[in-house]
Amino acid sequence: MTKIKCTVAYDGTQFHGYQVQPGKRTVQREIEKVLTRMHHGRTVKIVASGRTDAGVHALGQVFHFETMLNIPEERWAMALNSMLPDDIHIWRSEFVSDQFHARYDVKKKEYRYRLLTRPEPDLFRRTYTMHVAQPLDLAAMNQAAAAVVGTHDFSCFCAANTNVKDKVRTVYHISISKADNDETVIRIIGSGFLYQMVRIITGTLLDIGMHKLEPDRMAGIIEGGDRQNASATAPPHGLTLWQVTY
Amino acid sequence: MTKIKCTVAYDGTQFHGYQVQPGKRTVQREIEKVLTRMHHGRTVKIVASGRTDAGVHALGQVFHFETMLNIPEERWAMALNSMLPDDIHIWRSEFVSDQFHARYDVKKKEYRYRLLTRPEPDLFRRTYTMHVAQPLDLAAMNQAAAAVVGTHDFSCFCAANTNVKDKVRTVYHISISKADNDETVIRIIGSGFLYQMVRIITGTLLDIGMHKLEPDRMAGIIEGGDRQNASATAPPHGLTLWQVTY
Repeated sequence: MTKIKCTVAYDGTQFHGYQVQPGKRTVQREIEKVLTRMHHGRTVKIVASGRTDAGVHALGQVFHFETMLNIPEERWAMALNSMLPDDIHIWRSEFVSDQFHARYDVKKKEYRYRLLTRPEPDLFRRTYTMHVAQPLDLAAMNQAAAAVVGTHDFSCFCAANTNVKDKVRTVYHISISKADNDETVIRIIGSGFLYQMVRIITGTLLDIGMHKLEPDRMAGIIEGGDRQNASATAPPHGLTLWQVTY
Repeated sequence: MTKIKCTVAYDGTQFHGYQVQPGKRTVQREIEKVLTRMHHGRTVKIVASGRTDAGVHALGQVFHFETMLNIPEERWAMALNSMLPDDIHIWRSEFVSDQFHARYDVKKKEYRYRLLTRPEPDLFRRTYTMHVAQPLDLAAMNQAAAAVVGTHDFSCFCAANTNVKDKVRTVYHISISKADNDETVIRIIGSGFLYQMVRIITGTLLDIGMHKLEPDRMAGIIEGGDRQNASATAPPHGLTLWQVTY
């Protein structure tokens, strides 16, 4: 058996998220369908670095699978792309050791949340950015973001409907900066993230940027460990899983 | 009766073009549906600067309509936007004289064709750009474009299935330039355009940029007046009706 690691982008708009769900169009299902066809009907399962929610995009999601087919490593991307729908694109395929595991071996993940920060909406970016018409105080947001960096119990940023026990994660970096094209981008890099954690952090930073919440409240919100103290979850379509590092 | 002029953007991806067709989702139909609802079921028709094909986008399409409702001018945009689907957005609404006509009074139209010019595709721009993986010779394209500028019979750039008699139009400007974000943009400004004219010009410029056709052939193609001599029609999704000037 050969183990293949693939780096994949997808536009989350038309998917019910990453993970297979009965009767729904999901990223995993589309990829497994194509792989199974390539293996003449023998079911092939893929293992990703983690799931993404409905509407969330990926530029550099990673998954692995095993195969008995004898295809050169870079050919896998080409073969898959020729059969995948046009909202999924494999950037790269490479042989990895039997030991490699796309979920267990993750060292860092980077997410980016794109905000369209101008008075007028842009319908051409409506599925990739969250529109914020009012001005944001980026200095306040960056001040608050500094309190998130580090190793903490992030229960305050975890959606209620999860059964993960250990809520300690490490955030290595958060920055909020103006891009060109009227966008403001929140970059967040961490060891891993709880369910909806990035979107809840984004929602809380937005309240701080709009002066609905003081930036020095962030440390207390984390320490309190109560989801109720953080702000509303930002919508999924502004979020992109940017990169996974092993 | 009050005459209202509206400037409208739409994402052409999910429409069967601008113009009403029985049983199809079109831009005109969606806007007229909302206006008719606002007028308590009395049919309201809109008149645009011209139609756009299925998949073609608009940033600054213009239409007019007449109303007996007593609503302040800038309120029309807000009222319409609150009821329109999220792939249509009215930028501006203004009162105009009874004499104004969105089609007959057009002085200039600007179209832009967006090419993604890099080896890798970008699935997040797949519905707004045409992907061209090989390098383009912009100098050759600009040289050929200069021959298009002026007043000519443009039969060579007109789709066969049209019944327009007079095929003389004036092109004021064409330029092909690198934008940031790996895009190359073809800007074309003219008095008006024949059916699929911009897309056929784009296809011909692409063949020149790829050295499949010599740039000095352009003048002869126009003079010959034969659609067969021009290149294939570029796909609709790279094209945006940028601006209409009155």
